[in-house]
Amino acid sequence: MTTIRVRFAETDQMGVAHHSAYVVWLEAARVEWMRHLGLSYRELENEGISMAVASLQIQYRNAAYFDDELLIDTRLTTLKSRYGQFSYRIEGPDGHLVATAISEHISTDRTGRAVRLPSEWREALAGRIQPSHHGN
Amino acid sequence: MTTIRVRFAETDQMGVAHHSAYVVWLEAARVEWMRHLGLSYRELENEGISMAVASLQIQYRNAAYFDDELLIDTRLTTLKSRYGQFSYRIEGPDGHLVATAISEHISTDRTGRAVRLPSEWREALAGRIQPSHHGN
Amino acid sequence: MTTIRVRFAETDQMGVAHHSAYVVWLEAARVEWMRHLGLSYRELENEGISMAVASLQIQYRNAAYFDDELLIDTRLTTLKSRYGQFSYRIEGPDGHLVATAISEHISTDRTGRAVRLPSEWREALAGRIQPSHHGN
Amino acid sequence: MTTIRVRFAETDQMGVAHHSAYVVWLEAARVEWMRHLGLSYRELENEGISMAVASLQIQYRNAAYFDDELLIDTRLTTLKSRYGQFSYRIEGPDGHLVATAISEHISTDRTGRAVRLPSEWREALAGRIQPSHHGN
Repeated sequence: MTTIRVRFAETDQMGVAHHSAYVVWLEAARVEWMRHLGLSYRELENEGISMAVASLQIQYRNAAYFDDELLIDTRLTTLKSRYGQFSYRIEGPDGHLVATAISEHISTDRTGRAVRLPSEWREALAGRIQPSHHGN
Repeated sequence: MTTIRVRFAETDQMGVAHHSAYVVWLEAARVEWMRHLGLSYRELENEGISMAVASLQIQYRNAAYFDDELLIDTRLTTLKSRYGQFSYRIEGPDGHLVATAISEHISTDRTGRAVRLPSEWREALAGRIQPSHHGN
Repeated sequence: MTTIRVRFAETDQMGVAHHSAYVVWLEAARVEWMRHLGLSYRELENEGISMAVASLQIQYRNAAYFDDELLIDTRLTTLKSRYGQFSYRIEGPDGHLVATAISEHISTDRTGRAVRLPSEWREALAGRIQPSHHGN
Repeated sequence: MTTIRVRFAETDQMGVAHHSAYVVWLEAARVEWMRHLGLSYRELENEGISMAVASLQIQYRNAAYFDDELLIDTRLTTLKSRYGQFSYRIEGPDGHLVATAISEHISTDRTGRAVRLPSEWREALAGRIQPSHHGN
């Protein structure tokens, strides 16, 4: 679980966290999830490999507010040699649902070409597949 | 069609526009699309009504680069009294596909409660329904 | 001291944290600094009072990188009934200087008019004046 | 003069454009200013040379609002072989002052080392020095 504090800059004139901020939080949660497995996304990037975002779906359920501490549960739901899918659940301070999301990723080299994830990564990730938060 | 110039601040260390920037562009394109119909989203907001984002789906097809002029085609694909769905196609400078997207919106008052869009808005929008870029 | 982890979305194609991200970090550090004094900026905002930014100066000394944990030292350097000045020092993971900054603030009501900070805030802040990081 | 339309995502819960958005606008204005001189900052970047921001000062005078069309006047005020200073004036829709700013830049290579701007750039820029908006 990753904790995110909603920043003032992330609010909009509706008085809630802007929907684009969630995209940044999901990415930060993904990087933290990797770190907890002993995987440094920074090092992967330094080796010239990125997990480029191929698609993103977010269901916004309840607004998040400035200074809220949100909890993000990140799950790897599918893994192939060049592909990964993540599922997310964002909860508000009292456990209520803020949003769910799914992201798809292609591992690419610096030219944008799909490449296999390093074997160290595939092995570390292979045992971590979990069901999606979306029930299938 | 809305034109967006990719800002340097919108790039990331992969050398492409970050995937969160697309969310901001889609919103800007939506506001421009309304303006071309004679509808001011600013005035709607000033009346206390927002078109809150209920869900968002983006398919990232090809990277966008710093200083690219992107074209965004925005379509209203569904309209109900408290609900609207938009479809988007983002093209790069030479017409290649950069991304497609769908957003769902609930019209809400300042407390976040779903309310009917003003009749002026519903009338102006009602004749504008188009098929989605995704083939429905 | 506030800790900030540089987000991937905050990098740019130079491979470093974009200079606009620092502005957001300084604000987050300011809010945390208040929290450590028992002052909730969220509650101040909810009472209709903001500490609007009147000016900002940032000296960028060394680049910050994706995933760096930065330390931000925040100091209140001047306080008047409607005005405050803060000084900041941002350090990288090994203590090297990343940036220094100064921000000036006017306390305003919802219409943007300058108003006195609540007495509770002025009292809590009055004993906290420190010298600037800039040596005067 | 560069025109910037304030995006909804750039507002905050005070109902105005967030002060970090100005930093992004100044950069966009600088790139446009170069383009009007026939200089492509994109090409400079592609050659491995950046005009890294060394310092930034912004004076926020009046709030900017969602959907405002702002005008930014950009001036090059100092030029050396590895250094440039710009001055900016941001005006609101009716010509009122929104902000003034100054930025300092060092031309660097990909490793962050200061390097001379290409001679083509220095020649194009040399005749363009103007007085600062700040009166000195």
